[in-house]
Amino acid sequence: MKAVRLHEYHRLPVVEEVPEPAVRGPLDVVVRIGGAGVCRTDLHIAEGQWAEAMGVTLPYTLGHENAGWVHAVGSAVTSVAAGDTVILHPTPTCGLCPACRAGQDMHCAASVFPGLDSDGGMAELLLTSERACVKLDPRTRPEDVAALADAGITAYHAVRKAIPLLYPGTTCVLIGAGGLGHIGIQCLAALTATTIVVVDRNPDALKLAEQLGAHATVVADGRQVDAVKDLTGGRGAEVVLDFVAEQGAEQDGFAMTARAGSYYVIGYGGTVRIPTLDIISTERNLVGNIVGTYRDLCELMVLAQAGKVTLHTKTYPLDAAAEAFQDLDAGRVRGRAILVP
Amino acid sequence: MKAVRLHEYHRLPVVEEVPEPAVRGPLDVVVRIGGAGVCRTDLHIAEGQWAEAMGVTLPYTLGHENAGWVHAVGSAVTSVAAGDTVILHPTPTCGLCPACRAGQDMHCAASVFPGLDSDGGMAELLLTSERACVKLDPRTRPEDVAALADAGITAYHAVRKAIPLLYPGTTCVLIGAGGLGHIGIQCLAALTATTIVVVDRNPDALKLAEQLGAHATVVADGRQVDAVKDLTGGRGAEVVLDFVAEQGAEQDGFAMTARAGSYYVIGYGGTVRIPTLDIISTERNLVGNIVGTYRDLCELMVLAQAGKVTLHTKTYPLDAAAEAFQDLDAGRVRGRAILVP
Amino acid sequence: MKAVRLHEYHRLPVVEEVPEPAVRGPLDVVVRIGGAGVCRTDLHIAEGQWAEAMGVTLPYTLGHENAGWVHAVGSAVTSVAAGDTVILHPTPTCGLCPACRAGQDMHCAASVFPGLDSDGGMAELLLTSERACVKLDPRTRPEDVAALADAGITAYHAVRKAIPLLYPGTTCVLIGAGGLGHIGIQCLAALTATTIVVVDRNPDALKLAEQLGAHATVVADGRQVDAVKDLTGGRGAEVVLDFVAEQGAEQDGFAMTARAGSYYVIGYGGTVRIPTLDIISTERNLVGNIVGTYRDLCELMVLAQAGKVTLHTKTYPLDAAAEAFQDLDAGRVRGRAILVP
Amino acid sequence: MKAVRLHEYHRLPVVEEVPEPAVRGPLDVVVRIGGAGVCRTDLHIAEGQWAEAMGVTLPYTLGHENAGWVHAVGSAVTSVAAGDTVILHPTPTCGLCPACRAGQDMHCAASVFPGLDSDGGMAELLLTSERACVKLDPRTRPEDVAALADAGITAYHAVRKAIPLLYPGTTCVLIGAGGLGHIGIQCLAALTATTIVVVDRNPDALKLAEQLGAHATVVADGRQVDAVKDLTGGRGAEVVLDFVAEQGAEQDGFAMTARAGSYYVIGYGGTVRIPTLDIISTERNLVGNIVGTYRDLCELMVLAQAGKVTLHTKTYPLDAAAEAFQDLDAGRVRGRAILVP
Repeated sequence: MKAVRLHEYHRLPVVEEVPEPAVRGPLDVVVRIGGAGVCRTDLHIAEGQWAEAMGVTLPYTLGHENAGWVHAVGSAVTSVAAGDTVILHPTPTCGLCPACRAGQDMHCAASVFPGLDSDGGMAELLLTSERACVKLDPRTRPEDVAALADAGITAYHAVRKAIPLLYPGTTCVLIGAGGLGHIGIQCLAALTATTIVVVDRNPDALKLAEQLGAHATVVADGRQVDAVKDLTGGRGAEVVLDFVAEQGAEQDGFAMTARAGSYYVIGYGGTVRIPTLDIISTERNLVGNIVGTYRDLCELMVLAQAGKVTLHTKTYPLDAAAEAFQDLDAGRVRGRAILVP
Repeated sequence: MKAVRLHEYHRLPVVEEVPEPAVRGPLDVVVRIGGAGVCRTDLHIAEGQWAEAMGVTLPYTLGHENAGWVHAVGSAVTSVAAGDTVILHPTPTCGLCPACRAGQDMHCAASVFPGLDSDGGMAELLLTSERACVKLDPRTRPEDVAALADAGITAYHAVRKAIPLLYPGTTCVLIGAGGLGHIGIQCLAALTATTIVVVDRNPDALKLAEQLGAHATVVADGRQVDAVKDLTGGRGAEVVLDFVAEQGAEQDGFAMTARAGSYYVIGYGGTVRIPTLDIISTERNLVGNIVGTYRDLCELMVLAQAGKVTLHTKTYPLDAAAEAFQDLDAGRVRGRAILVP
Repeated sequence: MKAVRLHEYHRLPVVEEVPEPAVRGPLDVVVRIGGAGVCRTDLHIAEGQWAEAMGVTLPYTLGHENAGWVHAVGSAVTSVAAGDTVILHPTPTCGLCPACRAGQDMHCAASVFPGLDSDGGMAELLLTSERACVKLDPRTRPEDVAALADAGITAYHAVRKAIPLLYPGTTCVLIGAGGLGHIGIQCLAALTATTIVVVDRNPDALKLAEQLGAHATVVADGRQVDAVKDLTGGRGAEVVLDFVAEQGAEQDGFAMTARAGSYYVIGYGGTVRIPTLDIISTERNLVGNIVGTYRDLCELMVLAQAGKVTLHTKTYPLDAAAEAFQDLDAGRVRGRAILVP
Repeated sequence: MKAVRLHEYHRLPVVEEVPEPAVRGPLDVVVRIGGAGVCRTDLHIAEGQWAEAMGVTLPYTLGHENAGWVHAVGSAVTSVAAGDTVILHPTPTCGLCPACRAGQDMHCAASVFPGLDSDGGMAELLLTSERACVKLDPRTRPEDVAALADAGITAYHAVRKAIPLLYPGTTCVLIGAGGLGHIGIQCLAALTATTIVVVDRNPDALKLAEQLGAHATVVADGRQVDAVKDLTGGRGAEVVLDFVAEQGAEQDGFAMTARAGSYYVIGYGGTVRIPTLDIISTERNLVGNIVGTYRDLCELMVLAQAGKVTLHTKTYPLDAAAEAFQDLDAGRVRGRAILVP
C-alpha cells in the first residue's frame, strides 16, 4: 500500500509503497483510512523536534488524525466489525491502568501514539486497537471529520472542563482563533451561555470568530489586556482559554484572568513567570490541558453530526502529501489540510 | 481602653490608651477581645511591607486573629447578642456582592480587614460586623482558638478544596510544617485517608508533623524532589500543598506534582517559572489559595471543638505585646503567640 | 394606594385602597411595582389551599412575582437606590444563616414570602429588602420580566442543577410544556447540547415546544413511556424534568429515566411509589427542586436580556385583576398574565 | 475440583467434584480461590428469589465474593500473572461501553456476575477476566479480605458518593449496622469528619457501631425518627444511608433527612411512598446505590491494608459450606462467613 513516510529530518516526507499492516493481537483493528489530517505537529516532527521525546526510528509513517472504515479485526474484538465507519482516538489505550479505569484515558500509562511513536494513518491502512475506535453514522465521510480526532478533542476537552465556571453572566476569553481555537469557539457556543471574547493578531481570524459565535473580538495589538479589562468592567474574565501560550500570550492570559478565575493553558512554547503572591492574593488558577479522552471524542462527534461544530478543510490526494505539507508550512491552508488515500 | 498601636514603621508597636470603639451602624458589633493572635504578617506590617497595599494611616491598632465575647450590637443585629462567645472571620463582608452571594465571601467586593486596613483586635474592644461573628460554645476560651481565625482557615480552605482529589491510594505532599502547615496536617488527617508526606527543612518540625498525622517526612536538604518521587513510585503526589512558595519551594512543589495532579500555592514570596509545555504535556494545575470563607471558619471550629485540630499557643498579657513581637521575630515562639487583654 | 386584596377564601380578590408601605428597618426597600405575575399558586391561595401552611390573616395583598423601580430605601442600604429598575427574588432572605452563607438562599432559615405569608406585589408599592433586589438594565420593562421572578427561576434552578449530567449524546425529557416548562426548554437549549424531548398532553403546547428548541415531542396519550424508550434506544433519558408530578406523571417520569439517571421532581400533587429494589438495582436518583436562588435569578436575567429566554405575556391593568384571575382559571391566558399598576 | 453447587431451589447447596475451569479467551483469568464470602444473597438464591431475574440453569456453583491467587491467564493478559494475590471485582466488565469508559463500570452494558448468573467462586478455581482482578500485597490472606469484594464495595460506594455532603458540622445517619453497615461506619470515620449516628434494632450491633466510630446510636424502637431529630436540633441529617430500606426503614430514612439533604437507598425490599410536595418543598433527594466500581474496590483495599476497615470473619472449610449456610440463616455468624477451599 501507499504511505507517507518520513525518512530524514528536515526533509519532506515521501509517498512510497510499504507492506500492509495486519491484525496480530486479539484486540487489533486495521482501518482503511478515509481521511488523515495534516497537523502543525507533523511539521514539527519533520523538523526533528519530537525525535528525542518519541525515540522513533526512521523511516516511519506519519498521521495522527485519522478516520475511515474498519478493514479487519482481531479475534476478541466485539464492538466494531469490518465495514464500520470510524474515527480514531489518537492514542490506543490499555483500559486497565488507573487512568483508563477513571475515564481519564488520555493519561493511560501504556498508550501508544501512531503517527508520533509508530506508523500512523497517512496511508491506505492503519493498525490500531479496538479501544481507539468510535463508530460513526455510516453516512459520515471520514475526510470531513478526521481533524476532530486530535485538534478537535483538544479544544473540546478544555472547554468541557470549563463548563461549570461558565454560567450566564461570566466572560470567557479565547486567545488564538486558529485551528484549535475556531473549534473551541463553536464548542463554547454550543455548550454554554457565557460571553465569548476572542483575541487574535489576525483580523481575518476574528471575522471568522464572530461568525462562529464570538460576542466580541480583540486584536492582539499590544493593548489586548486592557481591552479585555474594559470589556469586563475591569475585573477580567472568569475563564481564559489560551490556545497560543507563547510569545507573551502566556503572560497576557493570566493578566486577563479575573480574581478567583482560571487560566487554561492549551497552546505551548512559552514560559509562565508569576509571583506566588499574585497567585494567592487573587486566588487564581492555572489549568493544564492535554488531548481529550475517548469520551470527549464521542461527545464532539455528537456536536459535529448535529452541525454544531464544523471544520473548514482542504483535501489532497495521498500522493500530494508533500504539497499539503508545503501549503501548511507556507500558511496557504485555510482550516485543515486532509489527505485522502 | 488599652490597644497595641503601630506609630511608625520599623519600630515596635506600643500599648496605649485609646477611646473605646462604639456601635455606629445597625449591623455593627463590638467584641470584647479574649485572645488576639500575633502573626508573622504583623511583623511584615511593622516593617512597612503592607503600607502601600493597605494605604492605612498611622497610628492604628494591629490584630487580625481575634476571638472574644460580644459587648454591644447594632439595632439590626439578630444573630448574636451581648455575652455570646465568638470567633471573628478576619474580613467583615457585605453579604450582597456576587462573591458573598455564592458563599465565596473571601472574595467580597467590599470587605474591610481590621488589623490591616483599620483598627484591629490587639485591644480590649474591637469594632466588627454581624457577618464576621461565629458563635461558639460558651465554654470555649477565646485565647485557645483565636489563631484559627486567620492562620487556621487559610490552611483549612486549601485542604478542603483538595478533598475530592485525595481519595485512598493518593499521596498529598505538604511543604512547610510551621504555623499554617501544622494545622493543614491535622485537617488532612481529619478529612481524608490520603497518604500525608511532609517536607520541611527543620527536623523538629517533622517530628511534630509525625505526631499530628504525617505518614512520612522528608528533610528539605536539596534532595526532597527525588525523595518524594521515591515515596510515590516515581509518579509524584496527586496534590502538593505548598505553605512556603518561596526560596525554591515553588519550583520543588510543581516538580513533586504527579501527572494530572494539582500544586496548591498557599505561601508566597517566590515566583513560579514553568514552560507551558510542562503544564500541558502532563496536564498539571496550579491552584491559588487565599484565606478561607466564613463557612470554612465554622467548619474548622467544629474540628477544633471535637479535638481534631489543636493549636500550640503561648499567651502574653496585652501589656507584653512588644515582648511577643520580639519573641516571634527571634523564633522563640513554639506554635502561636496570643495576646490576652 | 391600590392593591389586590384577598378578603375571603373561595372568592375573587378585590382592588381597594390601602395605606402605602413605608421603610421601617435599615435594610428595607420599597419598590414601585411595574409588573406583577398572576400565578396558578394565586388561584390555590384564593381557594384556601395554603391557608394552614402560611398561617396568614385575611385580608392581605397577593402577588409574589414582582418587578419595578426602587421607591425608597432604608438607612443601611448600599446596593440599590431610588429609581433603579429591579426584579425581586420572591423570598427576602437573612444573609446570615448557613444556607444563605452557602449561596443556597432559597433554604434561608428566616425568609419571608410576600404574596404568600405577607403583603405581596399586586399593588402600587411593595415592601421588600435589599437582599431581594436584582438591579436591571434601566431600559428593561418590569412587565416583560416579572414572571421570571418565580416561575422562571424555578425552571432555571432545576435545569442548572442538571447541566453536568447533560453532555452531548444524552437525552433530557421534559414533562409539561406549560408556564414553567416552556422556560425550562429555553434554558436547556441555551445551556446544554442535550437532545430535548418534550412530553405533554396538549399538541399545541408541543408545537410551541418545538419552536423553543425541543428536538422531539411526545403526546402524553398513555404510550408516552414507550415512546421515550423508543427515542432513546430503549434506555430512557439520562435526565427527566417533571414539571407536572401528579396524575401519573410522577410514575411515568421515573419509568422514563435511564439506568444511573436522575428524575427531577419540580411539579407536585402526586405521590411517588417506587420499590427500593428498583431504585438500587438501576442506581437511579430522585432529585427534589424548589424555587431558585438569588444567583439563579441574576443568571436567568442575563439569558433574558440576551434574548435567549422570552416569555409570552398578557397584561392587565391592576383594576382588572379579577378578570386576570378568571382568565387564568378558565385557561384563557396564553403564557403569563401580568398586572400593571 | 470441589465446588459448592446448587442443584435445586429450597435445598442446601452441595459440595461435589466438577471439571476445572480453563482459560478460553485471550483476556480470561483463572483464579485459585483463597476465600469466598457467604452472603445473604446466597440464601436468597437458594430460595429461588433470583431464579427468574438471572435466568440461570441449575446446577451451578455459588460464590460472588472472591479472593485468591492467579492460576492461569489468557494470551493477551498483561496486568496480572500466575501467582499474584488478587481480590476480584464481582462483575467482569467489557471496558468498552460508555459506562466502563466513564469509570462507572458497575453499569457495564455487557458484564456477567459469576455466582449469580454463571459459576462462582465457592470452589477451588474460578474463571474470571483480567479486568476483574485487583492485585494485592502478596502478604494478604485472601480469606481476610474476600468479603470486601461485594459487601465492602457496596458500602464504600455509597459513602464515597456522599463525601462532598459530609463536611464538618453535618450529621450522617446510618440505618442498619449489619454486614454492610459496619463497613460503612468505618468508611465514614476514615473519610469524613461528619457526626455519625447509627440506627439499628439490635443493641449489640449498636455497641459494635460505637467501637467502629459511631458518635451516637439510636435503638430503632419506634421513636427513632424523633430521636434523630433531637440529635440534630430538629433539622434531621444532611445524609441518611439506609442499609435496610424495608419494613418501614425506607419511610423513616426519608423522614430523618434534613431540608436540602439526601437519602441514600442501599438496602432493598420495601417501597418508598412520598408525596411529590414533600420532595419539592424541602428539596430533598433520594439517591440510588448499587455495587461499587473497580476503582471503589481498589480504594477500599487501600483502607483495608492500612487497617482502617476491618472485617469480622468466621472461616469454614469448603466441605462445610452447608454448615456455613445454616449458621448464616440461623443468625449464628458474627461478621461474615468465609469458605476456604
